[in-house]
Amino acid sequence: MQEYAFTVHSIPIGVLGASGYAGRELCGLIASHPSCNLRFATANERRGQTLRVRSGHGALIDVPMIAPDDANLNEVELVFSALPHGASVDWVGRVLDAGIRVVDLSSDLRPGRGGSTHPIPASVPANVPYGLPELFRADIAGARVVANPGCYPTSILVALAPFVRAGLVAPGALVSVAAASGVSGAGASPKAELLFAEVTENFRAYSAGNVHRHLPEMTDSVARLGGDFDLLFTPHLLPVDRGILSTITVPLTAPIADPLSVLRAAYDNEPFVEVSAELPALADVVHRNVVRVSAVTVQHVRTPTLLLFAAIDNLVKGAAGQAVQNANIMLGLDEAAGLPR
Amino acid sequence: MQEYAFTVHSIPIGVLGASGYAGRELCGLIASHPSCNLRFATANERRGQTLRVRSGHGALIDVPMIAPDDANLNEVELVFSALPHGASVDWVGRVLDAGIRVVDLSSDLRPGRGGSTHPIPASVPANVPYGLPELFRADIAGARVVANPGCYPTSILVALAPFVRAGLVAPGALVSVAAASGVSGAGASPKAELLFAEVTENFRAYSAGNVHRHLPEMTDSVARLGGDFDLLFTPHLLPVDRGILSTITVPLTAPIADPLSVLRAAYDNEPFVEVSAELPALADVVHRNVVRVSAVTVQHVRTPTLLLFAAIDNLVKGAAGQAVQNANIMLGLDEAAGLPR
Amino acid sequence: MQEYAFTVHSIPIGVLGASGYAGRELCGLIASHPSCNLRFATANERRGQTLRVRSGHGALIDVPMIAPDDANLNEVELVFSALPHGASVDWVGRVLDAGIRVVDLSSDLRPGRGGSTHPIPASVPANVPYGLPELFRADIAGARVVANPGCYPTSILVALAPFVRAGLVAPGALVSVAAASGVSGAGASPKAELLFAEVTENFRAYSAGNVHRHLPEMTDSVARLGGDFDLLFTPHLLPVDRGILSTITVPLTAPIADPLSVLRAAYDNEPFVEVSAELPALADVVHRNVVRVSAVTVQHVRTPTLLLFAAIDNLVKGAAGQAVQNANIMLGLDEAAGLPR
Amino acid sequence: MQEYAFTVHSIPIGVLGASGYAGRELCGLIASHPSCNLRFATANERRGQTLRVRSGHGALIDVPMIAPDDANLNEVELVFSALPHGASVDWVGRVLDAGIRVVDLSSDLRPGRGGSTHPIPASVPANVPYGLPELFRADIAGARVVANPGCYPTSILVALAPFVRAGLVAPGALVSVAAASGVSGAGASPKAELLFAEVTENFRAYSAGNVHRHLPEMTDSVARLGGDFDLLFTPHLLPVDRGILSTITVPLTAPIADPLSVLRAAYDNEPFVEVSAELPALADVVHRNVVRVSAVTVQHVRTPTLLLFAAIDNLVKGAAGQAVQNANIMLGLDEAAGLPR
Repeated sequence: MQEYAFTVHSIPIGVLGASGYAGRELCGLIASHPSCNLRFATANERRGQTLRVRSGHGALIDVPMIAPDDANLNEVELVFSALPHGASVDWVGRVLDAGIRVVDLSSDLRPGRGGSTHPIPASVPANVPYGLPELFRADIAGARVVANPGCYPTSILVALAPFVRAGLVAPGALVSVAAASGVSGAGASPKAELLFAEVTENFRAYSAGNVHRHLPEMTDSVARLGGDFDLLFTPHLLPVDRGILSTITVPLTAPIADPLSVLRAAYDNEPFVEVSAELPALADVVHRNVVRVSAVTVQHVRTPTLLLFAAIDNLVKGAAGQAVQNANIMLGLDEAAGLPR
Repeated sequence: MQEYAFTVHSIPIGVLGASGYAGRELCGLIASHPSCNLRFATANERRGQTLRVRSGHGALIDVPMIAPDDANLNEVELVFSALPHGASVDWVGRVLDAGIRVVDLSSDLRPGRGGSTHPIPASVPANVPYGLPELFRADIAGARVVANPGCYPTSILVALAPFVRAGLVAPGALVSVAAASGVSGAGASPKAELLFAEVTENFRAYSAGNVHRHLPEMTDSVARLGGDFDLLFTPHLLPVDRGILSTITVPLTAPIADPLSVLRAAYDNEPFVEVSAELPALADVVHRNVVRVSAVTVQHVRTPTLLLFAAIDNLVKGAAGQAVQNANIMLGLDEAAGLPR
Repeated sequence: MQEYAFTVHSIPIGVLGASGYAGRELCGLIASHPSCNLRFATANERRGQTLRVRSGHGALIDVPMIAPDDANLNEVELVFSALPHGASVDWVGRVLDAGIRVVDLSSDLRPGRGGSTHPIPASVPANVPYGLPELFRADIAGARVVANPGCYPTSILVALAPFVRAGLVAPGALVSVAAASGVSGAGASPKAELLFAEVTENFRAYSAGNVHRHLPEMTDSVARLGGDFDLLFTPHLLPVDRGILSTITVPLTAPIADPLSVLRAAYDNEPFVEVSAELPALADVVHRNVVRVSAVTVQHVRTPTLLLFAAIDNLVKGAAGQAVQNANIMLGLDEAAGLPR
Repeated sequence: MQEYAFTVHSIPIGVLGASGYAGRELCGLIASHPSCNLRFATANERRGQTLRVRSGHGALIDVPMIAPDDANLNEVELVFSALPHGASVDWVGRVLDAGIRVVDLSSDLRPGRGGSTHPIPASVPANVPYGLPELFRADIAGARVVANPGCYPTSILVALAPFVRAGLVAPGALVSVAAASGVSGAGASPKAELLFAEVTENFRAYSAGNVHRHLPEMTDSVARLGGDFDLLFTPHLLPVDRGILSTITVPLTAPIADPLSVLRAAYDNEPFVEVSAELPALADVVHRNVVRVSAVTVQHVRTPTLLLFAAIDNLVKGAAGQAVQNANIMLGLDEAAGLPR
C-alpha cells in the first residue's frame, strides 16, 4: 500500500472501523502524520472498496478497506478502534491480546460505558484511562489502552473543569447544557432522519431529559474533578456537517469578576485549548484539533451565574484528532504531531 | 392597485416598513386574507420599487412600495407598523392621531420598550396591550394600539405560562433558555455577518449574558403571570432561513408527573398552540402561525426539573402572523382568519 | 379516518407508495383538495405507521399507512401510484382490472418506459397518454390511465415546446440541457450519498453522457412536437431540498427578436405556466404547481442561439401537483382544483 | 507584526485589498508559505481593524489591516492586488513605479480587461501575461506583473485546452458552458441578494446570454490555443460557500474514443490538475489548489459531442492559490510552495 506509506521508519498504525466519519478522519490524519503510517484500515461491509479521505494536509487519498479478519495485528504498533459502540470492546480485547496498544473511540470503555453491559474481555485492564489529555494527561502516557472521550463531553468538560477544580460551582446546583452538533456526529450509516431533505432548514433537540449515552462519562469526570452538582445535558441536531457548540449555564458559589482569567490560567500552556473573549463559533474550529472556550458573567439574575461556551470539531478534537493526540502521548511522540491547529 | 384588492367590501389595511422580512410576510398574509385588502405598503429606501411576496395561499404577488409620506392613512382602517425599533413609535403616534388602529411589530411599546428611551408621542395611551393572545387576549379586543410581541418571547412565554400560573416554577430559581433562530430574524438589511458564506456551516451564540433587547418583555410577562424567578436568555444564530427553537430548563417546586397534561389543559382550545409528545422541530412549524410545545421530565438530577421546548416560525407566529391575529381580534373578525395553520 | 375526510360527497382517492416524498406530497394535496378525500395510503415497509404530511393549506396531517394488499380498491374512484419504477406497472394493471382510474407517477408507462423491460399487464391499454397537460391536454380527459411525466422532462418540454412547434429549433442541432435538482428528487430511501453531510456544500453532475432514464420521454415528446434535433441532458445534484432549474441551449434556424413573446403567446391562458422576463429561481416556484420559464437571446456567437430557463418544484409540478392536475382533468373537475399556485 | 513573520530571511509580501474573500485567503496562504512573510495587508474601509484568516495549515491568524496609503511598498518584494475590478489597475501602476513585482487578481489587465475602459498607467507594460500556468507558464517566469485569471475561466480553459490544441473542437461550433459558483465568488461586501435567507434553498442563473465579464478572457485564450469556435457562458449561483463546477458541451470534429486519455496526456506532469474518471464534485476540491477535470462521451446524438466537467475552489485555484502559484514562478520559488493540494 505505497499510497500512504510515507517513510520507512515511521510507526505502523491500523484503523478498525474506518468507513465511518471518525474512521475516515483518522485515516487522513495518520496519512499525513510525520511519524506514523497507515498499515491497514478495516470496514466489514465495505471491504474490497476504496474510500477517499482527506489528509491533514488537504490531499485526497484513496484508502483500501479490508475485512477486519484480514487485518494483521502484528504488523502494527497501535490500533485505533472506531467500531460502533457495543462492537468495539471485543476487538479492543483482541488487539490487547496481541500485545498491541489501542485507542478506543467507542463509549465501551469510558466511565459508565455509555450504558453498555456487553462483557469486557479479560485482557482489558480494570481502569482504562479516560483520554482527555487537558484534564487527565498523567493517566495516558503509560497506558496500553485509552478510552477516547465522546465529542460532547470533550467540549463540556474542558469548559467546566477550571471552575469545578477551583470550587466555584455551587454545590448541589443544576448545571444545564444545551449543546448542538452537526450531523456527522450521528455517523455515516444511511438513516432516513439524516437525509439532506430532512436536516436542511431544520433544528431539533433529541435524547432530551438526561437520557443521552454521554451523560455518565461527564458525571464521572465532574466527580473526579471534585464537583458536587448535577448536569442536565440536552443535545440538538444542527443543519451543518461538522462542529459542536455547547452552551453551559453554571450557578456559582459567588460572583466571579473575570471568568476568562480563570480559563486562561488553566489553559495557558495547552496547545489545543483556545480561550477567547469573543463567543466561539463553529467556523472557528472546524478541521482543527482545538476546544475554543469563552465565559460570560450573567446579568440581571439573583443567583451568581456564569455562561460558558465551548466549540469543537466533533470529528477532530471530538474524535479522531483527540485519538491521535492520545496515541502521540502513548507512543512518546510530540503530543501535537500530525494535528491541525 | 387591483392586484391585491380582492373584494370591494373588505377592510383596507396599510403596512409601514414593508420591505423587511416581517413586512413582506404581512403583505402576503393580507393579500390572501378573506376580509382584508392591502391598500398601501411603504418602504422609504425602496419606494417606487415593486417587491415580490408570497400570499398565504402560496401565490407570488408584486407589491408596489410607496414612500411613508405618500401613504394616505385615511384610506385604511388599520395599520401594521413593521418599522425598525426606535423608528416605529413616532409613526404609531401619527397613525393614532389620524384615528386609525395600529399593530406595532417593533419593541418600542412593549414592556421595557426594548431598552428604548425615545419619547412616546402623546396620542399613544399609557398602557399599550402586549399582544400575545394566548396569554393576554382580554386586553386586545378593544385596543386602538397593540404591541406585537418579539419572536423569542412568543415561543418562551407560551411554553412557560401554564407552569408559572400554576405556581410550579421554583421561587427565586434561574430558568435558563437556550434559543436558536434562523437568520430572517435578523432582518433583511445587508450586513456582512448575515451573508450566506458567513452563516452556512456555522452556529454561534450572541447577546450572551442576559443583554438581549427581548429580556424586559419576558420578565415583565413572567411577573404578570405570577412568577417570581429569574430568566437567563441566550440566543443563537442558526444556518436556516426561518424558525426558532427555545429549549428551557425549569427548576420546579416539586416533580410533575405528566407535564404534557399541564400544557394540554392550558391550550386545548387554542387554535395556534400545538402540544406535542414528540420534540418539536423547525420543520413542523415553518410557514404556520403556531407555537408547537413539548415538555420532558429531567432524570438523574436532585432538583426537580422540567425541560420545555417551543418551536415557532419567527416571521409568522413570531411576527406577521401574530400581528394579523391581533388585528383580527381588534377588528372583531374571526381570530384565525387568513392565518396558515 | 375522519382526519382528512372533509366532505361526504367528495371523490374517494387512494395513494399507492405513499411513504416517498412524492407520495407524501400527494397525500397532503388530496387532504386539502376541495372535491376529493384520501381513503387509503399504502406503504409496504412502513405499514402500521403514521406519516406526517403537510396539506396544501399548510396544516400538518397524520396519515396512517396500510399494506398495499389491505387497500380496498373498490372504495375509491381514482388511484395515484407513486410506487418505484419497475414496481408500479403491475399495480397499475391491478387497479385497471378493478375498473378504477389511475395516475402512474413512475416511468413505467411513459414513452420509452424509462428503459424498463418489465412486462406490461394486459389491462393496460396500448397508448397510455403522457400527462403533460400544457402540451397534450386533449389526450388526458377520457383516459383511464395516465403516465405522469418525470420532473426534469416537465421543466424542459414546457420551455422548449413553443419553439419546437414553431419550427425555430435548427434541424439536426444539439440542444444541450444542464439541469440541477434538489435531493428530494432522489427519493426518501436512505442512501449514503444523500446524507446531509455528503450533500451540504457540495454540487456534482450524475448520469452524464445522455444515459439518464428521463431521456426517452423527452426525445419522444420532441418528435411528437415536430422537432428534429438531438437532446443532451446532464443532471446535477443541488444542496437544496426541492426544486429543479433547467438551463437549455437551443441552436436556432434564425435569430428570434423577442423570444419571451413566443413563450407568452403559447402560455397566455395556461394557469400553471409563468413566463418571466427575470431569470427564474427555485425560490419562485417551491411549493407551487407552476413551471416558471424565461428566454434570453445569446450574444457574441455566430450560430443564432437561444437560452431557455425553466424552474419547477420537482415534487409539485414535477410530480404530485401535476398528478393531481391530471386527475382533475380525468375526473372532469376544475383543472386547478386543490393546486397551490 | 510578529504573528505571521515566521522567518527572518523569507520574502516580504504585501496584499492590497485584503478584506475581501480572495484577499483573506491570500493572507492565510502567505502566512503559512515556507519562503514568504506577510509584511502588510490593506483594507481601506476596515483600516485599523484586525481580520481573522485561516493559514494554509489551518491555524487562525489575526491580520491587522492598514490604509492603502500607509503601506510602505519599499518593504516588500511582491504585492498581490485583490482590489476591486476598476480600482486595481491604478495601484498596479503605483507598485510597478516603485519597482515592485505585482500579481493582479482583478480583471483590469486580463485579455479584454473585463470590459473596463479605465486608463492603464504608463508603468504597466503592453502585454501583461495571463497567469494560467498550466497553459501559459512560459510567459510568467520573467514577468514584473501578471494578470491572475478569473475563477470561471480557470476551470473552463484547463478542461478545454487539450482538446482545442489537438484541433478536436468543431470549427465554428458553439461550446456551451453551464457553470455554477458558490457565493464567496460574489465577494464579501454585504448585498441583499447574498444574504443567507436569499441564497439557502435557492438556485438561479445570472448574467445570462453571454454578457459576463469573464467572457473576453476566455475567448482570447481559446484563440491563442488555436480554437475557432464560439463560447456560450452561463453562470449560476449555488447555495454553497466555495467551489465552481463547470459543465461544458463540446461539439467535436470526430468522435474521441478515450477523452480521459487526452486529458491525462496533457496534464500528467501538472501538480495542480487532477484527471478523474469519476465526475468531479465540489467536495473534492474545496480548500485545494487544483482543477479536477473529467470527460464523458455523449451517447444518442448525431453530432460527435464531448462533455467536460471541471471543479475548482474559486478562492484557491480560482483566485488566491493561483496567485501564489504565479508569484512562486515569478520569484523563482518551487511552483507548489505554500499551496494546499
